[in-house]
Amino acid sequence: MVSMNNEVKLDTFPNPRPERDYTITHACAEFTSVCPITGNPDFGEITVEYVPDRLCIELKSLKLYYFSYRQRGIFYEAVINQILDDLVAASHPRRMTVTGKFNVRGGIYSVITAKYDAVNPHNEP
Amino acid sequence: MVSMNNEVKLDTFPNPRPERDYTITHACAEFTSVCPITGNPDFGEITVEYVPDRLCIELKSLKLYYFSYRQRGIFYEAVINQILDDLVAASHPRRMTVTGKFNVRGGIYSVITAKYDAVNPHNEP
Amino acid sequence: MVSMNNEVKLDTFPNPRPERDYTITHACAEFTSVCPITGNPDFGEITVEYVPDRLCIELKSLKLYYFSYRQRGIFYEAVINQILDDLVAASHPRRMTVTGKFNVRGGIYSVITAKYDAVNPHNEP
Amino acid sequence: MVSMNNEVKLDTFPNPRPERDYTITHACAEFTSVCPITGNPDFGEITVEYVPDRLCIELKSLKLYYFSYRQRGIFYEAVINQILDDLVAASHPRRMTVTGKFNVRGGIYSVITAKYDAVNPHNEP
Amino acid sequence: MVSMNNEVKLDTFPNPRPERDYTITHACAEFTSVCPITGNPDFGEITVEYVPDRLCIELKSLKLYYFSYRQRGIFYEAVINQILDDLVAASHPRRMTVTGKFNVRGGIYSVITAKYDAVNPHNEP
Amino acid sequence: MVSMNNEVKLDTFPNPRPERDYTITHACAEFTSVCPITGNPDFGEITVEYVPDRLCIELKSLKLYYFSYRQRGIFYEAVINQILDDLVAASHPRRMTVTGKFNVRGGIYSVITAKYDAVNPHNEP
Amino acid sequence: MVSMNNEVKLDTFPNPRPERDYTITHACAEFTSVCPITGNPDFGEITVEYVPDRLCIELKSLKLYYFSYRQRGIFYEAVINQILDDLVAASHPRRMTVTGKFNVRGGIYSVITAKYDAVNPHNEP
Amino acid sequence: MVSMNNEVKLDTFPNPRPERDYTITHACAEFTSVCPITGNPDFGEITVEYVPDRLCIELKSLKLYYFSYRQRGIFYEAVINQILDDLVAASHPRRMTVTGKFNVRGGIYSVITAKYDAVNPHNEP
Amino acid sequence: MVSMNNEVKLDTFPNPRPERDYTITHACAEFTSVCPITGNPDFGEITVEYVPDRLCIELKSLKLYYFSYRQRGIFYEAVINQILDDLVAASHPRRMTVTGKFNVRGGIYSVITAKYDAVNPHNEP
Amino acid sequence: MVSMNNEVKLDTFPNPRPERDYTITHACAEFTSVCPITGNPDFGEITVEYVPDRLCIELKSLKLYYFSYRQRGIFYEAVINQILDDLVAASHPRRMTVTGKFNVRGGIYSVITAKYDAVNPHNEP
Repeated sequence: MVSMNNEVKLDTFPNPRPERDYTITHACAEFTSVCPITGNPDFGEITVEYVPDRLCIELKSLKLYYFSYRQRGIFYEAVINQILDDLVAASHPRRMTVTGKFNVRGGIYSVITAKYDAVNPHNEP
Repeated sequence: MVSMNNEVKLDTFPNPRPERDYTITHACAEFTSVCPITGNPDFGEITVEYVPDRLCIELKSLKLYYFSYRQRGIFYEAVINQILDDLVAASHPRRMTVTGKFNVRGGIYSVITAKYDAVNPHNEP
Repeated sequence: MVSMNNEVKLDTFPNPRPERDYTITHACAEFTSVCPITGNPDFGEITVEYVPDRLCIELKSLKLYYFSYRQRGIFYEAVINQILDDLVAASHPRRMTVTGKFNVRGGIYSVITAKYDAVNPHNEP
Repeated sequence: MVSMNNEVKLDTFPNPRPERDYTITHACAEFTSVCPITGNPDFGEITVEYVPDRLCIELKSLKLYYFSYRQRGIFYEAVINQILDDLVAASHPRRMTVTGKFNVRGGIYSVITAKYDAVNPHNEP
Repeated sequence: MVSMNNEVKLDTFPNPRPERDYTITHACAEFTSVCPITGNPDFGEITVEYVPDRLCIELKSLKLYYFSYRQRGIFYEAVINQILDDLVAASHPRRMTVTGKFNVRGGIYSVITAKYDAVNPHNEP
Repeated sequence: MVSMNNEVKLDTFPNPRPERDYTITHACAEFTSVCPITGNPDFGEITVEYVPDRLCIELKSLKLYYFSYRQRGIFYEAVINQILDDLVAASHPRRMTVTGKFNVRGGIYSVITAKYDAVNPHNEP
Repeated sequence: MVSMNNEVKLDTFPNPRPERDYTITHACAEFTSVCPITGNPDFGEITVEYVPDRLCIELKSLKLYYFSYRQRGIFYEAVINQILDDLVAASHPRRMTVTGKFNVRGGIYSVITAKYDAVNPHNEP
Repeated sequence: MVSMNNEVKLDTFPNPRPERDYTITHACAEFTSVCPITGNPDFGEITVEYVPDRLCIELKSLKLYYFSYRQRGIFYEAVINQILDDLVAASHPRRMTVTGKFNVRGGIYSVITAKYDAVNPHNEP
Repeated sequence: MVSMNNEVKLDTFPNPRPERDYTITHACAEFTSVCPITGNPDFGEITVEYVPDRLCIELKSLKLYYFSYRQRGIFYEAVINQILDDLVAASHPRRMTVTGKFNVRGGIYSVITAKYDAVNPHNEP
Repeated sequence: MVSMNNEVKLDTFPNPRPERDYTITHACAEFTSVCPITGNPDFGEITVEYVPDRLCIELKSLKLYYFSYRQRGIFYEAVINQILDDLVAASHPRRMTVTGKFNVRGGIYSVITAKYDAVNPHNEP
């Protein structure tokens, strides 16, 4: 478990097959935050794909974690990097990728993708 | 043949071309089990892709094997790893991948994928 | 040309550019055979992708070759390996892949894929 | 509220705009029952469209009502007529249509649709 | 029950709600017959939509009935009118529509639709 | 203009062709409110189709009006009837239909549709 | 049979159920003619839907009839009215509709539809 | 021919079958104008469907007519009514419908549809 | 520029960024030739993807080049290899791939792909 | 920031996670320029995918930058290389790919793709 600014906890449960590398994907099409400049809501779909180590992310707490962004003013690029950092801190996965597909604004549709690997944690070039 | 907890047997038949590496995929969109916490049904699509060695999995017994999960309480992550273990035990394939795509719960859609390779059976990192 | 059990001949014609490696794909969504256990018809789509050497497969005879399966009792796995063997024997390609996508039976959709390479003819592991 | 054979109650709540004719549709792609002849599971999508009178159908109890079919042996035609009868008895709508789209069995995909109208309750010819 | 040329019987069972007009649709994407001119197979999807009176058409016998066309030489237009006549004779529905969507031949895709109504049995103009 | 509980105003502008009956549709896939029972967010797509009389609804204020539901606890059925009432009060259209398609909850996808007609304002039966 | 400018004959065969009104549709996605102004080829899909009287249109001659437009300079609007006139003259149907969907030219996609009814042959207003 | 503000002429040609009521549709996915408030470009697809009387609209001049909106500041509702008025003035059709589907702005997708009928020219209620 | 049998010239223009490797793709869904055996038209979509060196292929002349096949009798396999040879001769690209997707004939859909690389011009095995 | 011919500035903001390699994609389906030969508008979808270094591209200025092409006469190949050069000059990314998908002209649909890599800036062969 890890504590966020706004007091939402990401729960985990023990990985049922830690001896095997396998992949878990959770896609949520109901993500919404607020644009820090205009104050208007942003909408997007967040997908998390990871190889668990000893912990799996519990689905209900993941849903509540996403809800914690509902009234926060934050840019797309920061959203994806923050979610990756928080989920890595909570579950210590072997590998994890977070992708956000954000709805059209001003005629432009945006996708942001960030990755973590326990061997090269910050995906440095 | 292998025996499961609830007495379902996975039948096999001899591979008609064991001298050749080739791929068999069976996708079943009618998988259902029960959530061990809420007692509500879960629904998903299970796909098995494998390279047979001396045995092929018989389709009708695969269907019945999936039916054996209908009243069992089990988490997504455990479902996929259990199916992979059971099918490997029954058919001793050269390689096998099991994927489960589970219906939306709490606004989140989940996919779990686990792999087996006879050379590195537990896909260890 | 090669002769099948039921007297269908697979015709060929000279490859117009044998000095170049290039790829030919023929997909037939009208394949039907008979289940050897139940006697019920099976339906599927057969795709052949190959790099010709000196011979190309003639389309009309390929259609007739597929028709020769219409009343034959044969399993999915055997269908695909048999088609691959017959087309290789008739056209001696550099490489060939045969894929069968078979209609849902008992809630399960199946795909079988087998490959041939002149360098490693039986795709041995 | 109405009581079913297997003790599931369909809850209702007061219609917030009874003075207006408007339409409510609930579609559930997770319906499953059992074939009374083979004992194999059937799968389908049930859609209910209705114009409420004084009562609206509560969603959670509708979900539980569908779950009550999970182990019942019943034909497609009877499923749809039974659901229509039970929902009419529980909510007394002005009009209601129940549609079931059932998964392929033996190469055949089936759809059953039954309607109720308070003016002509049994939709008699 | 009704007997066809090639001895296939269309079974029926009692309509569970004869007092109500409702609609049953069965779609089969695995229909195949033979072109009476070229001897080549034809392929299509047959859809039957009907309002039952006292009898419903049994699915397994409908599947076998379609199989009886597998080796028959018959034109598209005759196929659809014959199926309509046979199903009406076997089940005496209140209304019935039979539609055939036939695969591309010579670059042309064909659809044939014929209807029966107990009040105007031959849909005369 | 009309005032809502939470002080959002729906702006309008003069219809450029009031002498002609024509149709305007605005679809917003970014609607979100809160379930009054669980406190969880609901998500949906709201479509408004109307024939203007002397006033057209201004798009930016419509967007802000939808945002006013972001933190309100309200049932699906009440959402749609409330939006219809508010838009009718603000723009006095000749005819208007409001449709909400709400995301899957408990395996059930819901659609609510309500209509207004200046001749029969409450669409009474 | 009817004779066209360029000597193509539209063959017909006797309607197998003249006592019944039923519908035949033939769609050809391989229609091409020439623009009478630029001399560039035009491409489109022609669909014919008709209720036969005593004659049905034979498919192979319909294909050849379409081929007769391959080198003709003719406008979209004239193509569709000409096909309707020729097919009516050849088969004397009870009702017929001809639709042409023509590929994008100058960023504009065009569809032309013309109808014939034996009771009001020219579809006069 | 009719003259627009910015000197674009809509050309016409004689209807090849004026004695028959038939339908012509032209869809252009490359329409763009300018928002009169923000000065930002708007994008949309304009579809014109009409029954010609003595004149048909010439495609190239229609394309140029749409280009004349490229730098004009104009609201969606005015665009559609203006196009309808101009095309009616140029071609005097029996009936005409103009539809504009405009790209998402502020999360809202808009469709405007206006109709003309020579019997009731302004589609008055 | 290169001259073809039927006097069509493929025009080129100077590559605006010859110092950079980048990719150009042109897809034409309006290709038609004639079957050299039956004399019937063939239809397909031709896609050219290439990395230009000093010359780019001019679009209008490419369109006219494709038109030159309209009345030529030629097999699928020869079409693709001929187009590749002609375009390479006209534009001397660094790399080029030509793909033809040909419409269904006898129930079979065909795709042919040939590649050129300036380092290994004939893609020899 | 960088200055273009027509005085549009591409704004940037600091990358919130410069220590991590991650990917940002912006797709705009509302790009339009003018053909330098015919003077007719061209339409396309421009997609930019990049790995930021110290700067991210600000969305609103990207939109305005695309608008600056609205009245410019420029070829497809030049458009894509120019956009890549300008965005690289403004944001100094680690890697960037620009893709343009341009609408059908003369029956041909075109896609152009150019890449930049800070290690090999001009993607030289």
